Amino acid sequence: MGSVQSFRSMCDREKNTNVRLSLPAVCIVWQTAMIILFGVFVRYDMEANADWEDYKTKKNITRSEIENDFYFRYPSFQDVHVMIFVGFGFLMTFLKRYSFGGVGFNFLIAAFGLQWALLMQGWFHHLGPDGKISINVYGMINADFCVAGCLIAYGALLGKVSPVQLMVLTLFGVTLFAVEEYIILNLIKAKDAGGSMVIHTFGAYYGLAISWMLYRPNLDQSSRLQRSVYHSDVFAMIGTLFLWMFWPSFNSAITEHGDGQHRAAINTYLSLASTVLTTVAVSSVFQKHGKLDMVHIQNSTLAGGVAVGTAAEFMLMPYGSLIVGFCCGILSTLGYIYITPFLEKRLKIQDTCGIHNLHAMPGVIGGIVGAITAAAASESVYGKKGIDLFQLPPAKQGGHQAGALCVALCFGIGGGILVGAILRLPIWGDPADDYCFDDEAYWEVPEEDEESIPPVLQYNNHMRNKDVCVSALFMGQ
Amino acid sequence: MGSVQSFRSMCDREKNTNVRLSLPAVCIVWQTAMIILFGVFVRYDMEANADWEDYKTKKNITRSEIENDFYFRYPSFQDVHVMIFVGFGFLMTFLKRYSFGGVGFNFLIAAFGLQWALLMQGWFHHLGPDGKISINVYGMINADFCVAGCLIAYGALLGKVSPVQLMVLTLFGVTLFAVEEYIILNLIKAKDAGGSMVIHTFGAYYGLAISWMLYRPNLDQSSRLQRSVYHSDVFAMIGTLFLWMFWPSFNSAITEHGDGQHRAAINTYLSLASTVLTTVAVSSVFQKHGKLDMVHIQNSTLAGGVAVGTAAEFMLMPYGSLIVGFCCGILSTLGYIYITPFLEKRLKIQDTCGIHNLHAMPGVIGGIVGAITAAAASESVYGKKGIDLFQLPPAKQGGHQAGALCVALCFGIGGGILVGAILRLPIWGDPADDYCFDDEAYWEVPEEDEESIPPVLQYNNHMRNKDVCVSALFMGQ
Amino acid sequence: MGSVQSFRSMCDREKNTNVRLSLPAVCIVWQTAMIILFGVFVRYDMEANADWEDYKTKKNITRSEIENDFYFRYPSFQDVHVMIFVGFGFLMTFLKRYSFGGVGFNFLIAAFGLQWALLMQGWFHHLGPDGKISINVYGMINADFCVAGCLIAYGALLGKVSPVQLMVLTLFGVTLFAVEEYIILNLIKAKDAGGSMVIHTFGAYYGLAISWMLYRPNLDQSSRLQRSVYHSDVFAMIGTLFLWMFWPSFNSAITEHGDGQHRAAINTYLSLASTVLTTVAVSSVFQKHGKLDMVHIQNSTLAGGVAVGTAAEFMLMPYGSLIVGFCCGILSTLGYIYITPFLEKRLKIQDTCGIHNLHAMPGVIGGIVGAITAAAASESVYGKKGIDLFQLPPAKQGGHQAGALCVALCFGIGGGILVGAILRLPIWGDPADDYCFDDEAYWEVPEEDEESIPPVLQYNNHMRNKDVCVSALFMGQ
Repeated sequence: MGSVQSFRSMCDREKNTNVRLSLPAVCIVWQTAMIILFGVFVRYDMEANADWEDYKTKKNITRSEIENDFYFRYPSFQDVHVMIFVGFGFLMTFLKRYSFGGVGFNFLIAAFGLQWALLMQGWFHHLGPDGKISINVYGMINADFCVAGCLIAYGALLGKVSPVQLMVLTLFGVTLFAVEEYIILNLIKAKDAGGSMVIHTFGAYYGLAISWMLYRPNLDQSSRLQRSVYHSDVFAMIGTLFLWMFWPSFNSAITEHGDGQHRAAINTYLSLASTVLTTVAVSSVFQKHGKLDMVHIQNSTLAGGVAVGTAAEFMLMPYGSLIVGFCCGILSTLGYIYITPFLEKRLKIQDTCGIHNLHAMPGVIGGIVGAITAAAASESVYGKKGIDLFQLPPAKQGGHQAGALCVALCFGIGGGILVGAILRLPIWGDPADDYCFDDEAYWEVPEEDEESIPPVLQYNNHMRNKDVCVSALFMGQ
Repeated sequence: MGSVQSFRSMCDREKNTNVRLSLPAVCIVWQTAMIILFGVFVRYDMEANADWEDYKTKKNITRSEIENDFYFRYPSFQDVHVMIFVGFGFLMTFLKRYSFGGVGFNFLIAAFGLQWALLMQGWFHHLGPDGKISINVYGMINADFCVAGCLIAYGALLGKVSPVQLMVLTLFGVTLFAVEEYIILNLIKAKDAGGSMVIHTFGAYYGLAISWMLYRPNLDQSSRLQRSVYHSDVFAMIGTLFLWMFWPSFNSAITEHGDGQHRAAINTYLSLASTVLTTVAVSSVFQKHGKLDMVHIQNSTLAGGVAVGTAAEFMLMPYGSLIVGFCCGILSTLGYIYITPFLEKRLKIQDTCGIHNLHAMPGVIGGIVGAITAAAASESVYGKKGIDLFQLPPAKQGGHQAGALCVALCFGIGGGILVGAILRLPIWGDPADDYCFDDEAYWEVPEEDEESIPPVLQYNNHMRNKDVCVSALFMGQ
Repeated sequence: MGSVQSFRSMCDREKNTNVRLSLPAVCIVWQTAMIILFGVFVRYDMEANADWEDYKTKKNITRSEIENDFYFRYPSFQDVHVMIFVGFGFLMTFLKRYSFGGVGFNFLIAAFGLQWALLMQGWFHHLGPDGKISINVYGMINADFCVAGCLIAYGALLGKVSPVQLMVLTLFGVTLFAVEEYIILNLIKAKDAGGSMVIHTFGAYYGLAISWMLYRPNLDQSSRLQRSVYHSDVFAMIGTLFLWMFWPSFNSAITEHGDGQHRAAINTYLSLASTVLTTVAVSSVFQKHGKLDMVHIQNSTLAGGVAVGTAAEFMLMPYGSLIVGFCCGILSTLGYIYITPFLEKRLKIQDTCGIHNLHAMPGVIGGIVGAITAAAASESVYGKKGIDLFQLPPAKQGGHQAGALCVALCFGIGGGILVGAILRLPIWGDPADDYCFDDEAYWEVPEEDEESIPPVLQYNNHMRNKDVCVSALFMGQ
């Protein structure tokens, strides 16, 4: 009896995750839409246009080609690009059987998201008098930033959603992001170069709210897969390190030329270094025998980069950066130990990667640090011209920064609940509770190396791949 | 009887792959030759020479040090360098027991090839009136480009050739490349900044022609090794992502300062994003249950970068780049599904990595897109000065671009047949048909972790490594 | 009886490696000290300060923002950063069960070391008249360089020391480095842009001397773990390649703007290419059947980068770089074959990663090459202004270079003996001889994937992780 029932649920399950129609349809339709919209709206920025030389002559511009914004920002852009695709992608390979989904779906939604972000951000920020969006390296960095918000949200949902759901999440996520960013940067006139609020706070609460809407009470049925193996933890360290190393580029990528970029890189470099030590300290002191936990090293070491996002271009001072990193390493690691289990048990928020500890809390701290630092700004520290970094008087700027943080929170939580409701519709091909965290659902997984598996297991393995329903019935599983 | 025969063939096999004499000899002799030729011919470019300051004084040059070509191109150079060594190298680690050969031989032939390329390209392009080649960052990028052609060819032959054969392939490949490049760029005056024709079309057909010449009718004897395992597919994604992320640097590395590099990066960025979505769509729709195939994700997602190589610096327009990427993702994935099996069965071309789908077809498309875009160029779009990007009037330029594509094809196929004939000589230490795709042939492979293997398999494993002939006889294998 | 004894020693062992108190204490105390010292001493450099615009106005500086030192050096800085964290980190993942410790402890000590280095190097080199250290991108590169010395030393000790010992090693290592560097660069006035002497010679002998002091006669008890498995060798290649590719940035990162950086990058690029071929040649010729050894490919291919460190910015000439790389590939590979076993058996120096072959010998060669090249410098080659690269007349410069090499050696060996004596104190939580090279000592290691292990081994595995003392007694191991 039991085996018949599980047989049925398994076969249902197989059907559920079939995205053979929906995934190709979404990809083709949306990509076609992108082509049409780009055709109507998007053109090269003047600095990337072949008639640049004529423009220079006409406008009597005599500057050197090296002053093209491309050379100020392209190295940072490439570092950010690595963070988005290798950093986020490999950080999500830590599960024993969800590495394909981690790095592969990250790739898919980032590639879609950046196109949609170029349009959405373009309409809000780079629309010329001719109704055309002009794109350049600055816009490419911003598109990558926008995508980061959605990838953070994916972290909470890793292993529990279908690629179609992720595409929907990204479509709405990018849209919400662009509106939120416009309100924060243009209406409220807050500063947020590294996106503590705009990217991390928004993205994390967006993902957590969706996860809350998609709560799975029986997720423990696939708990055997919700852990790492030795090699998958090493793969995840590739993601961690590329995020950690290139975070100074992330926070300095769109700051002001010259001292602005220089200062943002220094602050981020220092904050991250400090975070590593406190993460190790807390990880060790809370384990038996003082052993370190890879989950903490992979994630909490990055919290310092999140938390100096807003203030990276401010005169935070080197010791200020170290203090921010110090606190975030402790808080983020404690979050993994105490808050993640609490969120799951009490608030019914299942957070696969622990984005609450890596992005949500440090993002909020980053917003607060930014508000305080902005409020404390003075001409004696910033100089007469330097103070123009802020569009408002310091005290007012501080208040606006705090307001911006609230906007990010509201958009994240509200948007997440809305999108979560949409994603609960039974049409998206998401896996059953006992089929989560398993690449088998959406990937052709290579059979195990049969040489190293004893015959009885080879048989199981073979069956699992080939004809799972029959084998389940046959073996009474 | 059977075991005696297989014993013999195994021992023969062991002998065959012995490169203890030939590999060191080739490496030492060729490296010595490089030193002598560099001593005779190669000097630093003026911008890398210690007497640059005196030169500036003499010539009354007053520009800033930041205008040294080094700062325009070095970040791109490093990205290209990563593509060559990590990108190509790790993309070829996907086989379950040929990861050492994939990344290691890639390393070897790239390191040799770039030296030979500096000489060959130097003789054609950078020879001064004093008979000396001057090298700089531009030459280093071009040397890496030249090597890329040979690494593409290696993709077709992965697992089936010896390192000595690869060295020979590279020596001839670089030579052919330099001649072909000189004809295309200098004689025909075609443009090909990202090398759709010069690098990809040439390299791919060169490799395919060699593979055709080295056809192995009994290659199915090692089919057990011609597949991936879970972890090797994740390793290959490292290669995929670094290629994908840095391709904008590849296509913009040697374009014109300023708007040229800026535009090439934008076009490539967009084309690649578009390719990812159509690759996913086609991969999903052609599999049972819509499951994605890692082979497609690892390879076809890159086709868009190949196909905008020629036109990346042209006014392809953002939507044009998206369209190119759109088509190439579809075509390349269909290639893996239909054309690769066809090539193997009907045309007797065994293409391990599917370079026909990733480089050959997209390369040809790139050449065609380049020809059309060049033919359609006009002063109203490019501006009075911008149109000088082309050395010929648009219509004529279009024709020359098409001619260049034919040259690349001819050099690839013709050169490949020639070099393939040389590589068929029985002196190169290539493996027997049942010993392909196996690192045991050319590498000291560490023994398996015995703790996780049951005793009977441990025994086999131990035997395999230590004393393969005796164990084979003894066990009747 | 035997089992009771081993039971005791195992339980002792468990106690020994408990760093639950010491590791958090060291991390928190030292990080707090960093914050205080940074608060007192460290400020932004003028080029990274918000009042830069006012400063420009006051001093009548009219240069473009692109001439901020940030844009000259930031791409190189990021490459160096990748070498420190991914390069060194992944190079040390090659052991089958010490990948967490390799990449994780590398991360920890680099993050601490760079903060301490900013202070130590700041006091010696960047102390303003107001008693403040000003930091900028140049200082960040130098801090990463300083850390490299300690990471090299870690290579000799990999798997045999506790994280607390590593923190102590780093504290003293950075201190010694800063003093040694000050003597070599400022007092002796030697040049050493890529640090053949200052970084590699010092770091390697520092590590070897410590290893000598910490000699473990019974290390063969954990020899089962002192080897690689297939996947760990592929992981290590990630480290190798990122080191190899970015070494041109390492050697050119702090050389003079313009031709200096350009030339240093070219020399390093060529030397490394040459090393690959001779490494392959020697590796092949010394193995049965000419098979390549991954240890050589992972390490000796990098020797050429070490050995052009000092001379990279000199007029070494392209062929000169190739010759240096040629010799170092041979010497380093022979070192792995002959010298490492000799050092262990005769000199009682256990060198896990073979840093003697990768850093010590090539570092000394680099110092000698530098001395010879400097002594041979002439105005006819360098030009009137270019010769000012050296602060002394050529012959004298050569002598000072040789003297600098001796200083580096003395500091390395002397400092290593001193610090080794400290690390022998029985308070640091280092592992017993039969518990080396095992991540179990300091990390929560995920349990093996039980599906692929037969029941009897599952049991062992389970026991090993859960309750090792009881299982040892019970099973009589």
